Amino acid sequence: MSGDVARDPMTGEAISLPDIEPSRLQITRTTDPKQLPPSSSLLFGRTFTDHMLRIPWSGLTGWGAPSIEPYSTINLTPSATVLHYAQSLFEGLKAYRHTDGTVTMFRPDMNMKRMNNSAQRLALPAFNGEALIEMIKKLVSIDREWIPKEPGHSLYIRPTMIGTNGALGVQPPTEALLFVICSPVGPYYPRGFKPVPLYGTTEYIRAAPGGTGAFKLAANYAPGVVAQKSAAKAGYVQNLWLHGPEHYLTEVGTMNLFVALKGEDGVAELVTPPLDGMILPGVTRDSVLALARNHVSGAKKLPGLPDKLKISERPITMGEVIQANNAGRLIELFGTGTAAVVTPVDKIGYQGGDVHIPTGEDGMGPISKPLWTELVGIQTGTIQSDWNVVVPK
Amino acid sequence: MSGDVARDPMTGEAISLPDIEPSRLQITRTTDPKQLPPSSSLLFGRTFTDHMLRIPWSGLTGWGAPSIEPYSTINLTPSATVLHYAQSLFEGLKAYRHTDGTVTMFRPDMNMKRMNNSAQRLALPAFNGEALIEMIKKLVSIDREWIPKEPGHSLYIRPTMIGTNGALGVQPPTEALLFVICSPVGPYYPRGFKPVPLYGTTEYIRAAPGGTGAFKLAANYAPGVVAQKSAAKAGYVQNLWLHGPEHYLTEVGTMNLFVALKGEDGVAELVTPPLDGMILPGVTRDSVLALARNHVSGAKKLPGLPDKLKISERPITMGEVIQANNAGRLIELFGTGTAAVVTPVDKIGYQGGDVHIPTGEDGMGPISKPLWTELVGIQTGTIQSDWNVVVPK
Repeated sequence: MSGDVARDPMTGEAISLPDIEPSRLQITRTTDPKQLPPSSSLLFGRTFTDHMLRIPWSGLTGWGAPSIEPYSTINLTPSATVLHYAQSLFEGLKAYRHTDGTVTMFRPDMNMKRMNNSAQRLALPAFNGEALIEMIKKLVSIDREWIPKEPGHSLYIRPTMIGTNGALGVQPPTEALLFVICSPVGPYYPRGFKPVPLYGTTEYIRAAPGGTGAFKLAANYAPGVVAQKSAAKAGYVQNLWLHGPEHYLTEVGTMNLFVALKGEDGVAELVTPPLDGMILPGVTRDSVLALARNHVSGAKKLPGLPDKLKISERPITMGEVIQANNAGRLIELFGTGTAAVVTPVDKIGYQGGDVHIPTGEDGMGPISKPLWTELVGIQTGTIQSDWNVVVPK
Repeated sequence: MSGDVARDPMTGEAISLPDIEPSRLQITRTTDPKQLPPSSSLLFGRTFTDHMLRIPWSGLTGWGAPSIEPYSTINLTPSATVLHYAQSLFEGLKAYRHTDGTVTMFRPDMNMKRMNNSAQRLALPAFNGEALIEMIKKLVSIDREWIPKEPGHSLYIRPTMIGTNGALGVQPPTEALLFVICSPVGPYYPRGFKPVPLYGTTEYIRAAPGGTGAFKLAANYAPGVVAQKSAAKAGYVQNLWLHGPEHYLTEVGTMNLFVALKGEDGVAELVTPPLDGMILPGVTRDSVLALARNHVSGAKKLPGLPDKLKISERPITMGEVIQANNAGRLIELFGTGTAAVVTPVDKIGYQGGDVHIPTGEDGMGPISKPLWTELVGIQTGTIQSDWNVVVPK
């Protein structure tokens, strides 16, 4: 998590280039603040706050001075590598306003770790994640009024890193820009949980062994739009990425996936695909697993969750899901992600038919409900947790 | 190849949105022309001409008026989909100056066809390829003096299409920009052909079935940089993408791949991997195949090429290459692409050792040499061909 190492041109000795340095932060406040939109009108990722964070990087001089400045266009030379070769990666995390006015971010260290992993996968520069968290805190603090006060609302934070140097040869970037923008967002399900029907995609892939599915790269997303389009055309809300001739369940649209089922011994099992290189290591995925494991170990019992619960990171096929469903052993299936937290699924379009998935009375099933309740309790501050990082005023 | 179809909001009837319309072209010439750099100093894709072409698109109003204007920055809203989700595709083609001063482009219709296919894969808008060729002709004509006069030089043309609307939801773009920039380039091998050693990559993939390898998308390129870096670190110039447990040869770095070998019956065979969804349908690949087939059919004999030659688009594994090599039946192996046209290979780093590939005296082998001679003859105008499209003065 430190700046790249360069060589002294005279001596050949390794010289350490400057990392992100919070003490160099320059703040320019907007003179033309935007009007905050009514919270009820917010669409995901369409409205942005008054300010943004920018930190330039060059292979010769390392990370430059961070600046918080008015939200404004990014001006690129037409041959910039981000435009031609998708030299781009990003993160998504949220800041929540608690009822006492405290603002916290949820597990930002996880995002910094993943962002550095993504940077390494693209030969983009590494950076000190703690330093970036400090800068993001400043940004969120300055735009604190943009966090809607209504329950279920939050501020979506989008750190992004792009290659900016102009060169059409396909090479590691020599210049980059790290920027962070923030968008106030409403609850994903304003009228309560509504389970979504998924279309099982076998004609397109999201990831493959040796590819980039385990990293949060821009390159993973545009190719998925046609799969989403064909799911919508067939009457489904999202697509389920099925991998290989075995039709392994991998991810749901842009979310991780969980299946809850009873084993033949009657014991409930919570299954999510393993981090085998094709699965994004989601922060919500990790949090759900951690909460479930703490429940099972007794470290922190969650009301409503079965005492006996097996937690598995293992591959799971459509064949197994259908078999469990036919035997009445399928409990539920849900997606997890930063935007929606938990998304229950009620149907999978598969091989010309529909597999109907059990859902609970209020949309959520008996496994996801207690996990969601705990997670949202933590994020909104009603449950104390080390996962919350306070944004100072 | 026509503009997308929208629906009239009142009647629901299909209404055709405007396509690219050459008659709407607006030209603004630079008042500050750059100095042409000495041709000997040109590096690939680093120097750009005085002007660029821009054509905006919107889902509501279709393709807007094309403009040729001074080369200048592209200003994007920080949430533009190209920056976050790699909504970007591109093409590469060249304009050549013949000794009589004529300027031609090589098979631009192939690039337009592929560009529309790429756009469809990303849910970006289709367009009339003929109209874009007309606009590119205008651009090249205006910057005609930028085509270096030295033999082997050319003007590399880079059409690009990016999603520009600001929205963090992963969706089809509602706004896009098609732009074209031009870069004067020198010969890829200024001191004659030098065969390159390749590193056989098995730890990373370029493409997979159901993915985007058959399309010229930005998303296919950034993930390959680390494979190139590790090839370079191991002492090789480029990497060879080997697919699956069978280690199928697929592409060389960013080039298509050909293998020439003698069958057990002694007949020479020119093999290139088939367009199975993982291989980019390269214009040089297609041209090499067409020239070779015309030679075999007798439509146009190429001096030096064996009369008896089998031409195959079929999968080929490292096992088969090594077996042919050990039996003295491997003739040569080369890459093809717009930038270098033909790149001979002399070595493949594979499973801890090196497979040494035969090369001809001047670097090129007996199959690639006559094909390259014909192709470059056509491109530079010493051989007449329908593949050349004249750029009017």
